[in-house]
Amino acid sequence: MSRPLPRSFAMSIANFANGSDTPRAFLDRCVAEIEAREPQVKAFTTTRLEAAQKAADASTKRWHKGAPLSYIDGMPIGVKDVIETADMPTQMGSELYEGWAPGYDSASVHALREAGAIILGKTVTTEFAATRPGSTTNPYDVSRTPGGSSSGSAAGVGCGMISAGLGTQVVGSILRPASYCGVYGFKPSLGGINRGGSHDYMSQSVQGVLGASLADCWQVAIEIVTRAGGDPGHAGIIGPPLPPEADMPTTVAFLKTPGWDIAVDGARKVLNDALALLSVAGVTIISADTDSDVTRIEKLLPESLPLTRRINAWESRWPLNTYVDKDESKLSNGLVERLHEAEGMSVDDYRHDILRREEIRAAFASLANKVECCITLSAPDVAPVGLETTGNPIFAVQGSFLGVPTLSLPLASLNDLPIGFQFLGFLDEDAALFAHAAAIENVIGFLKVARDEHGQRYERS
Amino acid sequence: MSRPLPRSFAMSIANFANGSDTPRAFLDRCVAEIEAREPQVKAFTTTRLEAAQKAADASTKRWHKGAPLSYIDGMPIGVKDVIETADMPTQMGSELYEGWAPGYDSASVHALREAGAIILGKTVTTEFAATRPGSTTNPYDVSRTPGGSSSGSAAGVGCGMISAGLGTQVVGSILRPASYCGVYGFKPSLGGINRGGSHDYMSQSVQGVLGASLADCWQVAIEIVTRAGGDPGHAGIIGPPLPPEADMPTTVAFLKTPGWDIAVDGARKVLNDALALLSVAGVTIISADTDSDVTRIEKLLPESLPLTRRINAWESRWPLNTYVDKDESKLSNGLVERLHEAEGMSVDDYRHDILRREEIRAAFASLANKVECCITLSAPDVAPVGLETTGNPIFAVQGSFLGVPTLSLPLASLNDLPIGFQFLGFLDEDAALFAHAAAIENVIGFLKVARDEHGQRYERS
Repeated sequence: MSRPLPRSFAMSIANFANGSDTPRAFLDRCVAEIEAREPQVKAFTTTRLEAAQKAADASTKRWHKGAPLSYIDGMPIGVKDVIETADMPTQMGSELYEGWAPGYDSASVHALREAGAIILGKTVTTEFAATRPGSTTNPYDVSRTPGGSSSGSAAGVGCGMISAGLGTQVVGSILRPASYCGVYGFKPSLGGINRGGSHDYMSQSVQGVLGASLADCWQVAIEIVTRAGGDPGHAGIIGPPLPPEADMPTTVAFLKTPGWDIAVDGARKVLNDALALLSVAGVTIISADTDSDVTRIEKLLPESLPLTRRINAWESRWPLNTYVDKDESKLSNGLVERLHEAEGMSVDDYRHDILRREEIRAAFASLANKVECCITLSAPDVAPVGLETTGNPIFAVQGSFLGVPTLSLPLASLNDLPIGFQFLGFLDEDAALFAHAAAIENVIGFLKVARDEHGQRYERS
Repeated sequence: MSRPLPRSFAMSIANFANGSDTPRAFLDRCVAEIEAREPQVKAFTTTRLEAAQKAADASTKRWHKGAPLSYIDGMPIGVKDVIETADMPTQMGSELYEGWAPGYDSASVHALREAGAIILGKTVTTEFAATRPGSTTNPYDVSRTPGGSSSGSAAGVGCGMISAGLGTQVVGSILRPASYCGVYGFKPSLGGINRGGSHDYMSQSVQGVLGASLADCWQVAIEIVTRAGGDPGHAGIIGPPLPPEADMPTTVAFLKTPGWDIAVDGARKVLNDALALLSVAGVTIISADTDSDVTRIEKLLPESLPLTRRINAWESRWPLNTYVDKDESKLSNGLVERLHEAEGMSVDDYRHDILRREEIRAAFASLANKVECCITLSAPDVAPVGLETTGNPIFAVQGSFLGVPTLSLPLASLNDLPIGFQFLGFLDEDAALFAHAAAIENVIGFLKVARDEHGQRYERS
């Protein structure tokens, strides 16, 4: 596997401005990719290709006149099918919502349209962004999962059908599929992007972006926030109108979060090598081996996944109870079990859990006195074989639980399959995280581990 | 006007337990009231009387067996028509949503049904709980507004058609109609009741209760929270499973909030008399006349209404923009103007406004070191004549802006029309506010001002 080169729109805007490329031609390349690969990859539930072509022509005219509506005018985007769209149904991966078409855009989709972006289609989600996988396959190997729950957005970006896809994450639903599909994943700070009109209401859930580059992720997010803000009562993602410039951190924490113990050797190797490269570049790396504050955080993080599951269960009691009233046979066993878990909890149990989450968040926040960001893996391995699960969220859940911005960068491969490096920042410091990740990306390049008959072989490209 | 006696269910549960009354007989009295008065009062958009009768029979059997599902098993309740119900449409006072029936219960309605409450019907709201009034009239005088936006819930409780109605408040939508219709209004702390499945997403909006007594308000709220919690990420209303016992405060602040200057003489008189009674009962009353902390708060509160309007405008940009896309002709001018106001704001303007709100909230919170609660009017006057507006929210907005729990108690009348006293508590101290309000209610009784040919005449009953 050579370094993945999904179809970046953000890196093409100079060409749109100088006329050497056009949004229409860009879209045509995306559509060609859809025609070639969608039968196997199955990233979309619905597409609107003709409307997209008309929109791309209009965008092309605006760029030609030097008056694009924004830096994403003409960008082909997919929208996870839990986020409402006026012109397409929102089916949430559930038979209960088959054909459901409320007829209004979500806050984020409306903002994207105002900015001239092209909503190319709705992308496959697991059932209610939670459990039963959809039909999407991994663009690197159709026998493997794309990850979930933002499966279609990740796979669609991974094979260049779209430049970006909207996703949501409450456990690992952006970072995990980003890691498996070789794309960039951005889970913003809590409340960073307005969730109005999305079926995505949990307390640690956020809307975010899967993109072809860091620049695509930032640009999509900031164009939404400029027009629709964050969640009501939140500042929304704060930062510049174009992607933050690379800014090398002086100190980074390497976090052996839960999952590190089960990460495959190749994954540990590429991450350790990345850290060595950073060290050579002058970055101070602290870890639990040498720093007691990092040790303290690592002792708390094993609570992330079980607390997340309990908090999500309680917060899912509704609407699952009303779904069961409607037609239990249309829900997966996993969701019915989650409802039973919730019904075994009391509101006092929930209060205890969210207070504990607050304590752990405060402990993590204090690390900001020492480091600019943290680094770890996005997943313990490449995408597993089989479509019946979406893989292990053990690494990705940490940022969801902590509420902080996280990024997954596709900077490595094991046996030609992608794996992501995860960067964790601090609450509402999304722009700084992008700046540090951009600088680190420049240093790391792309790391490969291949296994031949003699064992591991390592390349840097 | 004698003291209003709406139909309290909470005060009847001893009779259900001893068999001298039954939920079915209670419901029949409510239905008789609906048959007699609904043609003039127009509190409901939809009723389900037959289903309610069956549910009341089932509840009667449970009480007879000594096994009610909760303390509100059999309580007839109305649900503001921005809150979804599986068996009735949710039309939001808007032509855009005429006949809209998504088919699922909101979190609160599901919890009420689990507790055995009877969802008697959907109650009239202003357009999207915001602007154009619905058809409801004031039960004390059909030429007057019932107040809004929770118009039907207030009017329905006010004339004994229901014991309680769910409402929502982001400006003055619970306390104002409570004041005008002579009922108790409870606006919980921010996040106090789960808003899932309600079209009610703004940052200072909450779901609350209009009820026939303090006990009815508490009981409805706590039965919901026990089963559905507060908003995701919030503790929800914390307190005992039955209404908090009366607890006389030692110190209360009298707040001359914005609106005091325009309050009618009779309203000022009854409030001053109430304060005198409290003083006689041994409660220390502090005010801006004597206390510099109260002065400081009163200097900040004139910002509440303009900041609320700007914050609400920005937070309404979506969905108003997608409603306009759909069919602008079905929106009132007021909502279209609100969208234009939002489109003149930037996300930075909004950030500035919510930061300022935080500062003022923090200043108010510091009063908790000095007083147990604050008291003022709920409205500057009785319900005005005319159905084209829902009256002035200037008093009621303070609690919305501050995010604190507030209660309106119907303890006075001017010329036989009700006016409420407002109690403001501190964040997440809803139970303490109920306890203090109950004690104060016992002291104040009911105050009347009548105007005869010689001017004001004052009675206490």
